[in-house]
Amino acid sequence: MKALGPIPEGFEALDGELAIGGRTASALAAEAGRTPLFVYSADRLKARVASLRSAMPDRLRIHYAMKANPFAPVLAVMRELVDGFDIASGGELVLAQAAGFPTERTSFAGPGKRDEELEAAILAGVTLNCESEGEGRRALAIADRIGTAPRIAIRVNPDFELRGSGMKMGGGAKPFGVDADRVPGLARELVSGGAIWRGLHIYTGSQALDADAIIDAQANVLDCAARLSEQIGEPLVHLNMGGGFGIPYFDKDEPLDIARVGAALEERFASLPAILADTEFAIELGRYLVGEAGVYLTRIVDRKVSHDTTYLITDGGLHHQLAASGNFGTVVRRNYPVAIATRFDAQPDEVVNVVGCLCTPLDRLADKALLPAADVGDLVAVFCAGAYGATASPAAFLGQGPAVEMLV
Amino acid sequence: MKALGPIPEGFEALDGELAIGGRTASALAAEAGRTPLFVYSADRLKARVASLRSAMPDRLRIHYAMKANPFAPVLAVMRELVDGFDIASGGELVLAQAAGFPTERTSFAGPGKRDEELEAAILAGVTLNCESEGEGRRALAIADRIGTAPRIAIRVNPDFELRGSGMKMGGGAKPFGVDADRVPGLARELVSGGAIWRGLHIYTGSQALDADAIIDAQANVLDCAARLSEQIGEPLVHLNMGGGFGIPYFDKDEPLDIARVGAALEERFASLPAILADTEFAIELGRYLVGEAGVYLTRIVDRKVSHDTTYLITDGGLHHQLAASGNFGTVVRRNYPVAIATRFDAQPDEVVNVVGCLCTPLDRLADKALLPAADVGDLVAVFCAGAYGATASPAAFLGQGPAVEMLV
Repeated sequence: MKALGPIPEGFEALDGELAIGGRTASALAAEAGRTPLFVYSADRLKARVASLRSAMPDRLRIHYAMKANPFAPVLAVMRELVDGFDIASGGELVLAQAAGFPTERTSFAGPGKRDEELEAAILAGVTLNCESEGEGRRALAIADRIGTAPRIAIRVNPDFELRGSGMKMGGGAKPFGVDADRVPGLARELVSGGAIWRGLHIYTGSQALDADAIIDAQANVLDCAARLSEQIGEPLVHLNMGGGFGIPYFDKDEPLDIARVGAALEERFASLPAILADTEFAIELGRYLVGEAGVYLTRIVDRKVSHDTTYLITDGGLHHQLAASGNFGTVVRRNYPVAIATRFDAQPDEVVNVVGCLCTPLDRLADKALLPAADVGDLVAVFCAGAYGATASPAAFLGQGPAVEMLV
Repeated sequence: MKALGPIPEGFEALDGELAIGGRTASALAAEAGRTPLFVYSADRLKARVASLRSAMPDRLRIHYAMKANPFAPVLAVMRELVDGFDIASGGELVLAQAAGFPTERTSFAGPGKRDEELEAAILAGVTLNCESEGEGRRALAIADRIGTAPRIAIRVNPDFELRGSGMKMGGGAKPFGVDADRVPGLARELVSGGAIWRGLHIYTGSQALDADAIIDAQANVLDCAARLSEQIGEPLVHLNMGGGFGIPYFDKDEPLDIARVGAALEERFASLPAILADTEFAIELGRYLVGEAGVYLTRIVDRKVSHDTTYLITDGGLHHQLAASGNFGTVVRRNYPVAIATRFDAQPDEVVNVVGCLCTPLDRLADKALLPAADVGDLVAVFCAGAYGATASPAAFLGQGPAVEMLV
C-alpha cells in the first residue's frame, strides 16, 4: 500500500459525495455533460487570497502568475482579488487583456520573448521583465520604431537559491534573468535608451513548503535589491520578490506556515534601507493561489483484476494530469490526493491502482491506494488540480482532447 | 560536454542548411509563416516502410499505430503504405475514417474504452482488442442494442515481457489486456455471445533496439498464441504480434537490426504449428515507422551568457517536445540528436545549452552540446521528432499553442 497525498481543506461530503461549491460531484459531471472535468471553486480562490492577505504585510502586493491556470472564468475571479497579473507569453497577454486586467499592472517574464510579443507588450503598456542584454536592446529598438516608451524591469539571476524548492530558479548559470553583476550596467543602458524604469524581478524558486527557506530567500532578495539599487544609483521603484510558496501534494507534506513568512517580512519591511523606503513590493504566486481550489473528476469505465491486482480504469489520465501521473518534473512518482468522489464519506476498504485510459504504463493516477470499493460509473477525484493541470498536460495525446473546465 | 544523439539517415545539407524533402530549413520555415514547426518527410516514410517490408516475411502484415503521429497528411501517406491502422481512442477512429482508411482493417486497443467509443467502433466494423471481461460484456450489450455483430479480438496480458524495452507492457499485473489463463474462457463467452472472432493481440513492450530481445519476444508471442488457440479449440484467424521496434535517440544507441529480426521470423513461420497454419500475422509499429521522418525546427530568439555558460534560447520547447526535454518516460535526461539547421555543414566549435522559451528549468533541448556557433535568427533542428512529438506534448502550456506541422 502507498499513501495518498492530503486532501486540501474546504471539501466536504454532501449526500455521500464530494461537494464543490455546494454541489455534488455527480451533479457537476451531469452539468458538464461529459467527463473528465476540472472544477474550480471560486470560494476556495477567495478564501485563499483572503488568508494570504491577512498573513502578509499590508504593503505587499499580491500578483497572480496566470501560467498556473489561465481559464478565463478563473482569471475573472482573480482580477478582483489580486494587485497584478504576471504573464509568460504573448498568448497570455491576449488572455489577460480579454479578462479585462489593467495592463499597467501586468508584467511579462520569460527567457524567449519573440519580437512580436515584445511589441504587443510595449504597446499595451505591460512591464517587461528583461531577461538579457539582447532582449533589452531588442525592446528598445522596437519601442523606438513604434514610438512608445517601454516599461522595463530587469529580471535578476541571483547568486542564491530558494532552499528546498521544487524548481530552483537562481544560483549559478541559468537561462533566466541577467547575472547580478551585470544588472547595474544594463539598467543604466535601458534608462538612457528611453525605457521607463520599473525596477527589479528576483525569482529564486518554486513549490517550497519550508517557511524558513522562504524567509531566508526573501531576506536575500531584499539585500540583493538594495545592493543593486545602490549600484544603479537610484531608489528602487518596484520589486517583484518572486514567489515560491508551495502546496502539499504528497503524504507527510505540511502546509507552508504563511503566518511566519508574513511576520518575518513585516519585520524586514520595518527596517528597510533608505533606497528601498518607497519601493512597491510584490510577490507573484500561481500554484499557491489556485492549486488547491481545483479538482479533476474522471469516471471509472472499467474495473479489472490482473494477477490479484485490482485496477480502476478511468476515462481521464495523464493527458489532463501529467504531473499527477508522475511524468512532469519528478523523478520518483508519488500519489497525489485522490478519492472516490461518489463515495466520499465511505470507509476505505480495498487497495487498488487507479489508472487513466491511455494505452501506456505511464498513465497512473494512484498506485496501491486504499480507497472505498468503487465500480464502473463512479467518479474519481484528483485534488490539487487547480494549477498546472489542464494546460500543462498533452491534451491531444492518443486522440483524447481537452477536459471540460468549469468554475463554480 | 554531453554527447548528442545520432542524426538519422537521409538528411543532407543544401546551401549549407539542413534539407528536408529537397528544401532548406529556412525555406520551410518561410513557407510555414512562423516557427516552431514540425516537418515530416514523405520520402523518409516511404523508405522506412520499404526497407521494413524487404526485411520481413511477405506473410507479415504491417500495421501503423497512429498514436505515434496522427497528422492527417501523414495518415494519407501511411494509408498507401501499410496493411492496417491501429487506433487508441474514438478520436483516433474519427481521424482514421477521415483519412479514408478501411475500417475493417483497423483495430482499437486501449484499457479505458467508453461506451460511446465502443459503439462507434462496432458500427464502423473496427476490430476491438478487448482488454477485460467487463469491456467484452459491454461490447456485446452495445452490439445487441444496435444490432451489429462486433468484431472482437482479445488483448492478452502475457506472462513474459520484451527485454530491454522502453516501456514494458507485459509480465505480471498490468492494466492492459486479459491475463493469459482467463483468455480461453472469455474467447468462448464472446463468440457464443455473437462476436465475430478476430483472434489475439499480444503486445509485450516498446522501443527496443536489441534484435535478440525482439526475436525472443516474438517467439514467445507465437508460442503463447498457439497454446491459447489450442485451449480455445479453433485455428487462430489473426494475430497482432505487437511492435516494440525502437529507434536510436541517444549517443551510443545502435539501430535495430531488422534483417535479423525478419530472418528469425521467417524461420518461425516455416515451422508453425497446425493451429497457426492459416493465421494472418501482423506487427503494429508507430514510432519505428514515423519517428525518424520528422524534424522539429525552432528559431533562436536570444543568445546569452550566464556565469560563463552560453544559452541559445529558442521559440520552441517542451510544449512541443516533452520527451526531448527529458520529461516524459525518462528518469535521466539525455540529449536527442540536435543540430543548427541553418549551419548544418559547419564545424562544431562551441559548447552551449539549447533551451526552450518557457519560464521553467525543465525546458531543455540540448545540454552542454558541441555545435557550430549560432545566433539569433538561426534555426535549431531536433531530430527523431516524427513520433510522440506534437500530440504528446502540452501545447497550451504558458499560452504558447501548437506548432505548425507540414508534410513535404
